[in-house]
Amino acid sequence: MAIRIAQIGIGPLGRKMTAYILARPNLEVVAAVDTDPSLQGRDLGELCSLGTLKILVAPSLEATLRRGQADVALLTTVSDLIRVIPQIEEVLQLGLPVVTTCEELTYPWITAPELAARLDKKAKDLGVAVLATGVNPGFMMDTLPISLTAVSQKIEAIKISRIQDASHRRLPFRQKIGAGLELREFEEKKKTGVLRHVGLTESMHMIAARLGWTIDSIEESISPIMADRSIVSEALTIQPGRVAGVQQIGKAFIDSNEKITLIFRASIGEAHPEDTVEIFGEPNILSTIPGGVHGDIATSAIALNAIPILLRAEPGLKTMIDLPRVAFSLM
Amino acid sequence: MAIRIAQIGIGPLGRKMTAYILARPNLEVVAAVDTDPSLQGRDLGELCSLGTLKILVAPSLEATLRRGQADVALLTTVSDLIRVIPQIEEVLQLGLPVVTTCEELTYPWITAPELAARLDKKAKDLGVAVLATGVNPGFMMDTLPISLTAVSQKIEAIKISRIQDASHRRLPFRQKIGAGLELREFEEKKKTGVLRHVGLTESMHMIAARLGWTIDSIEESISPIMADRSIVSEALTIQPGRVAGVQQIGKAFIDSNEKITLIFRASIGEAHPEDTVEIFGEPNILSTIPGGVHGDIATSAIALNAIPILLRAEPGLKTMIDLPRVAFSLM
Repeated sequence: MAIRIAQIGIGPLGRKMTAYILARPNLEVVAAVDTDPSLQGRDLGELCSLGTLKILVAPSLEATLRRGQADVALLTTVSDLIRVIPQIEEVLQLGLPVVTTCEELTYPWITAPELAARLDKKAKDLGVAVLATGVNPGFMMDTLPISLTAVSQKIEAIKISRIQDASHRRLPFRQKIGAGLELREFEEKKKTGVLRHVGLTESMHMIAARLGWTIDSIEESISPIMADRSIVSEALTIQPGRVAGVQQIGKAFIDSNEKITLIFRASIGEAHPEDTVEIFGEPNILSTIPGGVHGDIATSAIALNAIPILLRAEPGLKTMIDLPRVAFSLM
Repeated sequence: MAIRIAQIGIGPLGRKMTAYILARPNLEVVAAVDTDPSLQGRDLGELCSLGTLKILVAPSLEATLRRGQADVALLTTVSDLIRVIPQIEEVLQLGLPVVTTCEELTYPWITAPELAARLDKKAKDLGVAVLATGVNPGFMMDTLPISLTAVSQKIEAIKISRIQDASHRRLPFRQKIGAGLELREFEEKKKTGVLRHVGLTESMHMIAARLGWTIDSIEESISPIMADRSIVSEALTIQPGRVAGVQQIGKAFIDSNEKITLIFRASIGEAHPEDTVEIFGEPNILSTIPGGVHGDIATSAIALNAIPILLRAEPGLKTMIDLPRVAFSLM
């Protein structure tokens, strides 16, 4: 019997998720929720250009679903912890486990220990499990490197880079990296925190937790990547001198040694997209994925692949390192 | 407190393991066993060129260890199931969990279901867990590709290749790939089964089991790689026209579609060593480790990294896909 999914958040990522759920024999969508009034009452399938699904977008889960009609909620709404927690708590009250793509929730135990503990307790009290995952954080810069350390006898340092061409990514992603802005606008937006890719800190904490490292300090920096020529892409053209994207670097130190380095770079027209993991130790390991893994497909896929695993987990707030290995499965 | 390990099998791999155990703060060796009379009574540390350890190689575990003096047995003796099972059963009788590098035991549920079930029952009856792992089978051609499918929405086929330069590998490995033989000798030895790398079939079954695929048939083929020039390496020189190594191909079919392809190639002086995983699907993923991962270090490391995981596992015969993700850990 297929796992019945209630989707919360019918933005660009949520709509992709719908299509991917429909393509899988072991999953089905049974409800759709979004707080955007312009989406409410509309057919989920039509919003996704998939034909009629006879599932209308509702303002809340309670408005559209009775207890026992879904097995899990898939929540694709916001990146920040403060805003996602009340949304998750509402779902937990209905007795539903939650898989979400909220980046800050992927490893909140160091950055927001009290909020994490509160959510964990609530999930345990209500007997359901919660997981945040995605391609990054959730895979490329944490669980994949962690998996590679299975063959490590000794580790001096880990360096991970994700270099992406953002030309084919969804609009919110292109906005998040500042593509097309003037430098002045980029710097202003950077101050308000809207331009950053969320998750480097969470990935570093996840790696350290799994390897048994105690991080002394963390640094994150953000800088613009400027277009030095006119960059023409499917969705937009970047004029020379404007922002093509963002480079963000995260560093974790132990005893003033740089143990983890994360380089996230995403711009329109990026010349050499590639995902790389380097483990310095015994043995040295360099693992590359030329071209990189497409973020939207991968985030959808890993969230869906995590669902059967989460449904078998003990109640509580889980992270990717608490659960058995997530993998594609037809079952 | 360090995990106390009883080592069984003090051949070249076992000796490397001793050195790697000594290098880790969370592990210690408390006993050494080998059936080879020429090793018995000798100091383990001296055999490993590590100085005196005051651990003498004994003919059996019972001869050297009282109940409660070790936490786990690390068994590095043979590759075949039939011979390893009585060795493991002897250890289980002493109430010790077992981590072994026996290739055929990494996924015996399809190739030897009755033996696997018998060992599983015995382990459960005695309340301890058993795991076979190594770099391959155990990682490069099964759990690593499985980990990569976490971001897969759809998989058409998986192709994995491990191309190794055997120049720096231990002697039994070089013998196993037929390095230095004449073609006639290679073909004779091939018939007796001693030349093959053991594990391709096990890796294919492990992948299929985790992905929910039902394999219809499996093919394995072995062919020699001939030296077309004089190949000089650290340990031996291969004359032109002699065997430099072996190429082995494993294929798994579903409905006459080739779903899994494994290419194992190891020879002295191999020009482009590399570990590659290709997943054809949505998205396509190509992951490469240029130079490849050194097999002896990696097999030792993954077996040691698996120990803390196995000690927390339920009793029974486990495979790498039954356990939580194995990774390096200081804890």
